[in-house]
Amino acid sequence: MLLQRSTWPEVEAYLQQSDGIIIPIGSTEQHGPTGLIGTDAICAEAIAQGVADRTQALVGPTINVGMALHHLGFPGSVSLRPSTLLQVIVDYLSSLAQHGFRHFYFINGHGGNIATVRAAFAEFYAVAGDRRCPEPDRLRCHLANWFMVPAVTKLARELYGDEEGSHATPSEVALTQFIYPDSIKTAPLTVEVHSSHAIYAADDFRRRYPDGRMGSNPALATPEHGQQFYESAVAELSQSYQAFLAAD
Amino acid sequence: MLLQRSTWPEVEAYLQQSDGIIIPIGSTEQHGPTGLIGTDAICAEAIAQGVADRTQALVGPTINVGMALHHLGFPGSVSLRPSTLLQVIVDYLSSLAQHGFRHFYFINGHGGNIATVRAAFAEFYAVAGDRRCPEPDRLRCHLANWFMVPAVTKLARELYGDEEGSHATPSEVALTQFIYPDSIKTAPLTVEVHSSHAIYAADDFRRRYPDGRMGSNPALATPEHGQQFYESAVAELSQSYQAFLAAD
Amino acid sequence: MLLQRSTWPEVEAYLQQSDGIIIPIGSTEQHGPTGLIGTDAICAEAIAQGVADRTQALVGPTINVGMALHHLGFPGSVSLRPSTLLQVIVDYLSSLAQHGFRHFYFINGHGGNIATVRAAFAEFYAVAGDRRCPEPDRLRCHLANWFMVPAVTKLARELYGDEEGSHATPSEVALTQFIYPDSIKTAPLTVEVHSSHAIYAADDFRRRYPDGRMGSNPALATPEHGQQFYESAVAELSQSYQAFLAAD
Amino acid sequence: MLLQRSTWPEVEAYLQQSDGIIIPIGSTEQHGPTGLIGTDAICAEAIAQGVADRTQALVGPTINVGMALHHLGFPGSVSLRPSTLLQVIVDYLSSLAQHGFRHFYFINGHGGNIATVRAAFAEFYAVAGDRRCPEPDRLRCHLANWFMVPAVTKLARELYGDEEGSHATPSEVALTQFIYPDSIKTAPLTVEVHSSHAIYAADDFRRRYPDGRMGSNPALATPEHGQQFYESAVAELSQSYQAFLAAD
Amino acid sequence: MLLQRSTWPEVEAYLQQSDGIIIPIGSTEQHGPTGLIGTDAICAEAIAQGVADRTQALVGPTINVGMALHHLGFPGSVSLRPSTLLQVIVDYLSSLAQHGFRHFYFINGHGGNIATVRAAFAEFYAVAGDRRCPEPDRLRCHLANWFMVPAVTKLARELYGDEEGSHATPSEVALTQFIYPDSIKTAPLTVEVHSSHAIYAADDFRRRYPDGRMGSNPALATPEHGQQFYESAVAELSQSYQAFLAAD
Amino acid sequence: MLLQRSTWPEVEAYLQQSDGIIIPIGSTEQHGPTGLIGTDAICAEAIAQGVADRTQALVGPTINVGMALHHLGFPGSVSLRPSTLLQVIVDYLSSLAQHGFRHFYFINGHGGNIATVRAAFAEFYAVAGDRRCPEPDRLRCHLANWFMVPAVTKLARELYGDEEGSHATPSEVALTQFIYPDSIKTAPLTVEVHSSHAIYAADDFRRRYPDGRMGSNPALATPEHGQQFYESAVAELSQSYQAFLAAD
Repeated sequence: MLLQRSTWPEVEAYLQQSDGIIIPIGSTEQHGPTGLIGTDAICAEAIAQGVADRTQALVGPTINVGMALHHLGFPGSVSLRPSTLLQVIVDYLSSLAQHGFRHFYFINGHGGNIATVRAAFAEFYAVAGDRRCPEPDRLRCHLANWFMVPAVTKLARELYGDEEGSHATPSEVALTQFIYPDSIKTAPLTVEVHSSHAIYAADDFRRRYPDGRMGSNPALATPEHGQQFYESAVAELSQSYQAFLAAD
Repeated sequence: MLLQRSTWPEVEAYLQQSDGIIIPIGSTEQHGPTGLIGTDAICAEAIAQGVADRTQALVGPTINVGMALHHLGFPGSVSLRPSTLLQVIVDYLSSLAQHGFRHFYFINGHGGNIATVRAAFAEFYAVAGDRRCPEPDRLRCHLANWFMVPAVTKLARELYGDEEGSHATPSEVALTQFIYPDSIKTAPLTVEVHSSHAIYAADDFRRRYPDGRMGSNPALATPEHGQQFYESAVAELSQSYQAFLAAD
Repeated sequence: MLLQRSTWPEVEAYLQQSDGIIIPIGSTEQHGPTGLIGTDAICAEAIAQGVADRTQALVGPTINVGMALHHLGFPGSVSLRPSTLLQVIVDYLSSLAQHGFRHFYFINGHGGNIATVRAAFAEFYAVAGDRRCPEPDRLRCHLANWFMVPAVTKLARELYGDEEGSHATPSEVALTQFIYPDSIKTAPLTVEVHSSHAIYAADDFRRRYPDGRMGSNPALATPEHGQQFYESAVAELSQSYQAFLAAD
Repeated sequence: MLLQRSTWPEVEAYLQQSDGIIIPIGSTEQHGPTGLIGTDAICAEAIAQGVADRTQALVGPTINVGMALHHLGFPGSVSLRPSTLLQVIVDYLSSLAQHGFRHFYFINGHGGNIATVRAAFAEFYAVAGDRRCPEPDRLRCHLANWFMVPAVTKLARELYGDEEGSHATPSEVALTQFIYPDSIKTAPLTVEVHSSHAIYAADDFRRRYPDGRMGSNPALATPEHGQQFYESAVAELSQSYQAFLAAD
Repeated sequence: MLLQRSTWPEVEAYLQQSDGIIIPIGSTEQHGPTGLIGTDAICAEAIAQGVADRTQALVGPTINVGMALHHLGFPGSVSLRPSTLLQVIVDYLSSLAQHGFRHFYFINGHGGNIATVRAAFAEFYAVAGDRRCPEPDRLRCHLANWFMVPAVTKLARELYGDEEGSHATPSEVALTQFIYPDSIKTAPLTVEVHSSHAIYAADDFRRRYPDGRMGSNPALATPEHGQQFYESAVAELSQSYQAFLAAD
Repeated sequence: MLLQRSTWPEVEAYLQQSDGIIIPIGSTEQHGPTGLIGTDAICAEAIAQGVADRTQALVGPTINVGMALHHLGFPGSVSLRPSTLLQVIVDYLSSLAQHGFRHFYFINGHGGNIATVRAAFAEFYAVAGDRRCPEPDRLRCHLANWFMVPAVTKLARELYGDEEGSHATPSEVALTQFIYPDSIKTAPLTVEVHSSHAIYAADDFRRRYPDGRMGSNPALATPEHGQQFYESAVAELSQSYQAFLAAD
C-alpha cells in the first residue's frame, strides 16, 4: 500500500490497524560508468514496496535525494547537505507522528545517508514534543540498510567475491537491472579501480576513484542476480519490520 | 531522459548539448475522499516526463514532499516547513549548477509550493557564488504550474465549470486516473463543500473543508479527461520550456 | 493609531475592541535614476496609515528592508535573504499573537516580497503553537499589495498605458512625490528601457535593466497622480481590511 | 541625507566622497504607562538624522524591531529573537559592503540590542568574504548608544538624579516628547517602581516591574529637556562618527 | 603537546612538521549509579593525550558536551542537539584548516556522537572552500572510537564477558578509575539491568534502563583494568593515527 | 563538586539542596608570544572550581571554545561563530533546566564571549518553555567576568599600571602560571605593542596587533601574582554567586 496512491480515509483506516510506516531513502549520485544515478533510490523503493506487500504495510514517498556530497565531482549527482537532510527527516516524521504513526522503518539504499539519518532520529525524538506530536516517548525509528542484510552480503560474496567492492557494486547494479531491464547500460570499465574505502571531499573522491567505482566490477551483474538480491532482501527485511512492530 | 535512469557519462554527454533540466515538484497531502495523497507529485512527474520526451530534455528526481502544512489535519499528509523546503531547493540546484546546468525548469503540481519555490530561487541566485557554482549571473530558474496553463484551465472550465474548485479538483483527479487507472478511488462525497479560498492553520483548514475538498466535485473526473489534460499540459509546457532555453 | 506612538495600556485597550493590526512591508532598493530607494517602504507605510485612519486600526512598525536580492547590483540597495525575512516575519507575528492579536493584514509595496511573505505565513501558523501563541487555529494573515489593487492598476493604465512598466513605475514614483514633495528627483532617462519581466541574479538584473527601470517611464509621474493613487488604494484597502476582520 | 529618500545615482555619487553610513537601531517595546512603544526607534532615528545633517552622512533605514524578548509580557511589544536579529544585521551590512561601504556606525536606542548587535558584527566580519564583499579586512562597525553618551548621562543625572532609572526613563521620554509633541501621554504612575536591574524571562519581568518602568519617573520629562538631550547627543555623536571615519 | 597549553608561535612551529591534530570528543551524560557523568570526555581526553605523547602530536581542546539527548531523563546529563553539534564541529575544523591543519583525528568516547560527527565531516568538506580554507580537497577527517578498538573489545570480553554491556560499561568505568582514582564511586546495583540495545526518546530510555546502565555490570571495574584499557587503546590508536597521516 | 566527576544520583541529591550551577566559559585563542592558547578556558575553569569549593556548588563542563573569530589570523586559534555559540549555550542550559536547575552562573574568561553569551541568555528564556523546561519564568542566568571583578582590576592596576593592556595581559598570564607552573613560556616581546582597543576582522586584527598582544606586557607576570589574582577572584565571585542564589 503506497501512501502516494492512497486517500486520506484509507490512511485513517490503516491507522486503526497499524501505526507503522516504511520510508524508502536513496540518493541521486553517480554509480560508475554503467550504474544508474538513481540506483540507491530505485533499490530502496522497490524493496520497500516488496516488504510492504508481504506485511500489509504502508510505504511513504521515497526520499530520493540524500547525502551524496562526495559524489558531486561527477555530473548529475545531486545532494542535500547533512544539515538540510536532517531537517527534511524531522519534518517528514513530525508530520506523520501528528496523525498517530509511531513506528518509522527506513529502508536505505545508500551508505552515505546513514550518519545523517541516525542524527535526524535523535533530533526528531527531542523536538517531537515541541511540534505537537502526541506521546513522543512512544515514537520509534529504525534504519535498515538493504545492502547490509546478511542474506544479501552472503549472496554478493558468493557471486562476486572481492569484485563486489563498495560503490557501484554488482549487487546494486544487478538489482536495478532486475527492476528496469530496459535501462541496462554497458560501457568499457577500463579505468583501474581503487579498493580503498577512504572518502573525503568531492574533488578528492574523483581523483581517487576516477570513474566513480570503488573497488567494484559491475560488469558481473545480471538481472537474474538482481532478482535473487531482491528476494533475499525482501524476505529478511519483512521479518525485521514485523519484529520492529512487535518489540516493546 | 530521466536523470535517475542515466549514468554520469550520459549526463556528461547531455551537457554538451543542453544546460537545461526539468524538475518536477509535487506534494504529499490529502486530496479529498477520492483523490490520491500523491496527486501533486504524480501529475508533475508524469507531465515532466512527457515534456522531456518531446524536447529531449533531462528530468531530475521529483521533489515529492512539498509545502503542505495546512493539510496536516488529515492523516497521511506530509509536509516540509517552508524554511526546510527552501534549503532543499538551494542544495538541489547548487549541486547541478556545479556541473554546468544553468536552466532549471520546475514543473509544479501544488499551489502551496509556489511561494517557497520562488523564495528559494532568489536565495539560490544569491548563494550560488559562495557555493562554487560557476558564473552565477547566468543561472536561470523558471516555475511552471501545470494546473495554471491556459489550455488546462480552459479545458477544466469547459468540462467542470464551477465544480472544478481549487483543491482535489476533478482535473487533477482525472490526470491521476489516466496515469494510474488501477488506483481510481470512489467514495461518497456527501459533505457539503466550501468554496472559499481562505487558507490558514491546519486545524482551521480541516474545520473549513471537512473532507478536504475546496469547492470541487472530483466525481466528475474520468481517465479520458485525464488524457486530455495530460496532452494539453505537455504540449503547452514543451513550448514554454523551449522558449525558456532560447531566451536571453 | 500607530503602535510606535502608542503606550502599552493603549494597546491593551485597543485589544478589547479589535484583534487586527496592519503591518506595512516595503523594501530598500533602487528605483531607477529618479525613484527613491525607499519607495516601497514609503508607499506601504503611507497607505497603511491612511487605511488605519479610516478603519480605526492599529499600524505596526514598517518592515522597511525586504527581499531585494536582485537589486543588489545598484548601490544603496539593501536586502534580507528570504530565509532571514521569513524568520523576521515569524518573530514579529509570534510576538503579537501572544498578546491576543489574531488578524494580521500586511500592506506590501514590493513584488519581490510576495513569495517570502506567503511562505512566512505558512511557517508562522505551524510554529505559533510551539511559541506559546494561544489558539493558533484562529490566527489569520492576509497579504495586500497596494500596487495590484484593481483601482490602482486601472488608474495606472489610464494615466500611463504601457509606460507604467513593472519596476520604478510612474505610479509608485507619483505616490512618493505626493508623500514627500520635497524629494522629487529629476535625471535624464536616456537608457533604453527593457520591457521583459525576467528576474534572475543581481548581476544579470543590472545587465538587463542598466538604469534599474523595468519597462517604465517614471518621468510621467506627478504629485497629483500620487494623490489619486493614494486615495484609490486607501479606499479599496480599507474595505478589504474590514472584510478581512469580518470574515470567518 | 536619507538612503530611503535618495536615488541610486545619488548613493553612487556619495560613495565617491565617503564610505560611511549611519544605521539607527531601536526597538518596539513597552515603555511604561506613558512612554511610546516606539521610543527606542524614534530616538535613534532622530538622533541619527541629526548627526547626519551635521556630518553630511548618509542614514540607512531604521531597524525598528530589535531584541525585546523580555518585554513580551506587555501588549504591543514586538521582538526578534537574537538569532534572527543577528542574521538581519549580517544581511543588511553585507548588502552595503558589496557597494563599497566600509564604515558602519550604529546609533542604538535600546540596551537590549547591545549584545546581539556586537555578536552580529563579529559574525559579519567572518562571513563578509564568503558573501562577496570586497576587502573584508577593511570593514569597520561601531556601536554608539545615544543614552550612554557622557553628555547625556550627565544631563540626566542633573535633571532627574535617581529617578532617571533604567527603563522608560525620563530622558528618553523627554526626547520623544521633543520629537513628537503631539504624542505626549499622561497616565497615573501609581505602581511602586522597582529599582533592581535584573532581567530574565518575560513573565518574570512583568512580575518584577508591573507597569513596565525600571526605577524611573517619566513624569519628570518635558519636551524642553528632550531638546537638550537631542542636542547633546547629536553634538557628541557627530564628533564620534567623524573620529570613527578618520581612524585607522 | 596540548593546544591549550601552547603558544601560537609554538603551533606555528608545529605546523612546519605536521598538519595533523587529535581532537578528543566525549559527552556529559549519566553513566549509571557509579559511573562518572563525564566518563566519555574523560576517557577520550586521556587517551588522546596518551596518543599525542607517543606520536608528538598536538591535541585540541576536548569537545566535552556531545550528543546525549537520550540520556536527558537523568539529572546532570547535558546534550547538544545534532544540528548544533554539527555546526560546532564545522566551526572548529574550519578554524584550524585556515591555519594549514589538514589531518583531523577525532578520538571519541561516546557511541551517540558517531552519527553526528560523521555527518559533520561531510558538511565540513562541502563548506570548507566557502569558509576560506585553502585546498579543501586535501582535508582529511578520521573518527576513532577508543571503545571499539580491537584490543579494547578483546580485553573487555576476556575480563567481563556479557557483563560488559553497552553503556556504563565496566571497561569505561575502569578507565575513569585509573585516571581519577580519587573519584571511584560505589552504589548498590540492585536494579535489574536490561540488555536490549534499542534507543529512542529520553523518557523511553529511562523507562527501559531505569538506573541508566545498558546490560552492564560496572562493579567489575578496577583501576588496574583501567590501566590495561588505557595502554591497549593508546598503543593501537597511536599506530592508527600515524597510518592516517601517512596515507594518501 | 564537578559535574563531570559526579554520578547522576549525586546530582539528584545535590538538586535537593541547590538549583544553582557554575559554568566556566573560556576560549581557544592566541595570547601573544608567551600566553597559552587556552588561557581563557584555563582561568575560568580554575576560578570556577575555587568558587565551587567555597560555596559547595556544582561546576559544569567548561565551554572551552568560544567566540574568538578575530584571533583566527594566528595559528591555533579556534572559534565558534556567534550563531553557533548561541545554540550551544541554549542547548546546554535547556538540558539542565529540564532537571530542575534554575540558577546558571557563568564564569567567563574572555571578553569576546560577552555579547554572544548575553544574547544566548535572552534566547534561552524565550525558548525554554518550548523545550519542556518547567517554569521558564523562574530561570536565572548570570554572567561574571573574572577579569572585570573590582578586586582583580585593582590588583592589576597596582601591579602593572598601563602595561596590563587588554589582551594577553600580565594578570591572565600570571594566573595560568600559577595554575600550570610547568607551562611558563618565555619569548622576546620585541614587537611594539599597540594600545588601541579597536577590533574588526581577523586579518585586520593581526595587522594591528602583530604579535597578538593588545597593549600588554605579559613579561611582568609571575606565578605569585597569579595566586593573588586567583584568591581575589575566588573570594569576590563566591560572594557574588551566593548573592545570585539568594536574590529574588
